[in-house]
Amino acid sequence: MAASKPLNALDGDPVAVESLLRDVFGIVVDEAIRKGTSASEKVCEWKEPEELKHLLDLELQSQGESQEQILERCRAVIHYSVKTGHPRFFNQLFSGLDPHALAGRIITESLNTSQYTYEIAPVFVLMEEEVLKKLRALVGWNSGDGVFCPGGSISNMYAMNLARYQRYPDCKQRGLRALPPLALFTSKECHYSISKGAAFLGLGTDSVRVVKADERGKMIPEDLERQISLAEAEGSVPFLVSTTSGTTVLGAFDPLDAIADVCQRHGLWLHVDAAWGGSVLLSRTHRHLLDGIQRADSVAWNPHKLLGAGLQCSALLLRDTSNLLKRCHGSQASYLFQQDKFYDVALDTGDKVVQCGRRVDCLKLWLMWKAQGGQGLERRIDQAFALTRYLVEEIKKREGFELVMEPEFVNVCFWFVPPSLRGKKESPDYSKRLSQVKLCQAKRGEKVLRMKA
Amino acid sequence: MAASKPLNALDGDPVAVESLLRDVFGIVVDEAIRKGTSASEKVCEWKEPEELKHLLDLELQSQGESQEQILERCRAVIHYSVKTGHPRFFNQLFSGLDPHALAGRIITESLNTSQYTYEIAPVFVLMEEEVLKKLRALVGWNSGDGVFCPGGSISNMYAMNLARYQRYPDCKQRGLRALPPLALFTSKECHYSISKGAAFLGLGTDSVRVVKADERGKMIPEDLERQISLAEAEGSVPFLVSTTSGTTVLGAFDPLDAIADVCQRHGLWLHVDAAWGGSVLLSRTHRHLLDGIQRADSVAWNPHKLLGAGLQCSALLLRDTSNLLKRCHGSQASYLFQQDKFYDVALDTGDKVVQCGRRVDCLKLWLMWKAQGGQGLERRIDQAFALTRYLVEEIKKREGFELVMEPEFVNVCFWFVPPSLRGKKESPDYSKRLSQVKLCQAKRGEKVLRMKA
Repeated sequence: MAASKPLNALDGDPVAVESLLRDVFGIVVDEAIRKGTSASEKVCEWKEPEELKHLLDLELQSQGESQEQILERCRAVIHYSVKTGHPRFFNQLFSGLDPHALAGRIITESLNTSQYTYEIAPVFVLMEEEVLKKLRALVGWNSGDGVFCPGGSISNMYAMNLARYQRYPDCKQRGLRALPPLALFTSKECHYSISKGAAFLGLGTDSVRVVKADERGKMIPEDLERQISLAEAEGSVPFLVSTTSGTTVLGAFDPLDAIADVCQRHGLWLHVDAAWGGSVLLSRTHRHLLDGIQRADSVAWNPHKLLGAGLQCSALLLRDTSNLLKRCHGSQASYLFQQDKFYDVALDTGDKVVQCGRRVDCLKLWLMWKAQGGQGLERRIDQAFALTRYLVEEIKKREGFELVMEPEFVNVCFWFVPPSLRGKKESPDYSKRLSQVKLCQAKRGEKVLRMKA
Repeated sequence: MAASKPLNALDGDPVAVESLLRDVFGIVVDEAIRKGTSASEKVCEWKEPEELKHLLDLELQSQGESQEQILERCRAVIHYSVKTGHPRFFNQLFSGLDPHALAGRIITESLNTSQYTYEIAPVFVLMEEEVLKKLRALVGWNSGDGVFCPGGSISNMYAMNLARYQRYPDCKQRGLRALPPLALFTSKECHYSISKGAAFLGLGTDSVRVVKADERGKMIPEDLERQISLAEAEGSVPFLVSTTSGTTVLGAFDPLDAIADVCQRHGLWLHVDAAWGGSVLLSRTHRHLLDGIQRADSVAWNPHKLLGAGLQCSALLLRDTSNLLKRCHGSQASYLFQQDKFYDVALDTGDKVVQCGRRVDCLKLWLMWKAQGGQGLERRIDQAFALTRYLVEEIKKREGFELVMEPEFVNVCFWFVPPSLRGKKESPDYSKRLSQVKLCQAKRGEKVLRMKA
């Protein structure tokens, strides 16, 4: 009977499936890997949006296309995409191509499962636990909890939600209206996800109190004290301080120990947004930048950034051992988290999160770590710092380049002073004109310069 | 100088990189694709957690491992994982292996970019727009907005946040304390993400008013009316009705037209959680199940479920044309969304979301659609309905199986009545004893049975 034919595509023909995938993989290796990481090729074949639309022929039709057409489309997609693994790609807080991480990602995709229960993801439930344990150990905790989230912004939101729930468990059921007005504190150099999170969680952006940063972009603990008093005087209840280890633009590390003292005095949850800087914990030479992190209640750390594990890989780490994550987010859906399974249901981690299905984000990091070892990853971090020094020295030597500050991390901020402005620092429109030449960040210690008009 | 060596792994040796990836891809094809989809192989090589831990040797060490060891690890990861593309895999709302979708996912991973700006994802910004347009057209809208989210739960949360923002834009800045108590409505058969979302967004689970469902699991519009009056009488302000098209357990479709009438009368945002059932819109024969969906304000639709696009692919679709998404979620981060770029910055979609980096989720669906065409996808949906009929008829024929109800979608709920209980419906502990044999769902019209003790 026709209706009992399996539902596989390509009429379930395994030879055709394999042949397609082999062809596509060949294209990936040629275009994305070989050319995509070759310095003699372009980072991007840039096209204006209208032209690119025309070239790609994106419209979805009723009729399917031939295998040949599909392979041509795969080539075009790669051809016109930005090669983020290219050695001249500097635009973002991620770059490079780690082959082991990519291998892990391809396996993840081929297995296509969700991280929520042991029965559906036995390997990955255990692996996530192990990877989180390792990351926690680097923070300085030999117990705790955690979970991989779809990006650092959501990891930061989790921290906010956990902090308010811990203080006011009622909030989950009765909502914020049942609570006094809350205040959280972060520096003006923090990531924009803090205010986005406050809005999304119903706290409102007004609940975010901005603490002053010093000239290097670090939160000033004395101003934090002042802001806490101010908020209290205005009738708000402080509940959370969100610090940053590796700010987005300047690469600054907030002084965690001094801030932890403040949090301790006031009984506040200490969150560290180490999405960018967390990977420095792997370097014995540089991890002092995060001194005090072991005193935090929560840490957000994105191995997809400095470690190059691949988008997305964002860990939220918790010092908590009271099952706060599950109590805060759980809803005990009976169709998924049955309590009478034939294994320990504590392994069903799905109720720790606000997602239902959740991607497997641990394998790429685990496999890379197994291949490189902690030592190999440490060498990479140290090398990024070394390259940063190299760039800084080059900038100092070169006419027309002006360092904004000596970096302590791998963000190098500098001005390019065009010939027309050199030696004219005293002229009244100098700053304005200089700022029309774009300020750039250089990541991973490489040089970058984009100019506009 | 040593420090200027590129930071690639495997010492940046492109031959070694290619060779590793080719080996891994060979393993993926052999283990995950060929064996993983063969009915003569196991769906899962089941191990108890402790034994599996031992077998996998998960611990992360200082020392890296040899290429050979790494390949062995790749084999083990696949070997002990559940093969969700296997023809006998029935556990979840996703299954099957579409080779074109997988091809798209492998390309996505190899390009490793974020969806937030045109300069970093030119192809995918345009492609996402096109895919969303196509999905909106199937809903019945020739304009609107939308975005891919990391799963249906977060898509549903977005709908809640947009609905409250549209009504009370103040909420973003001032938070929920500045608003009257809000109430949202959903049926008792809805997905658990609605109450999780209410908690996360600070509304509290109490704000979720549960509307009765009929014996088939469909929301009863008259009870919705009653619940709205009740909430108003208690001093709450109704703002959102969240309906479900394809409930998780029974596969029920709420009567959207009748509910849209209620929403219209009361000025409420109508959200349709069509994460599971949305793909039925592709079938001319069965799309009547979603009649009225064009009257919704927002729709969540997960092509990673019934269409098999791969985890995760969840679209939030909006009828809005007033840029609500960006106004509600935007924070105009100046380091990322500069307004003086050399292209139309409306293409920078990153400020529509609460994430910062966001995975590319459109390519897998786009490539599958290009290969199958709308007609090919329609055939799959129709075939799933046909297989459902087949299963239902088989169940009716077989002793010891009892249908819970005639399905209208592809969820088939039935009881297995063990020999000891047959013909004993009248005995007082019949229900209790029967329920100890697990109630199962059969998805995609296939048979499934798990028994316990």
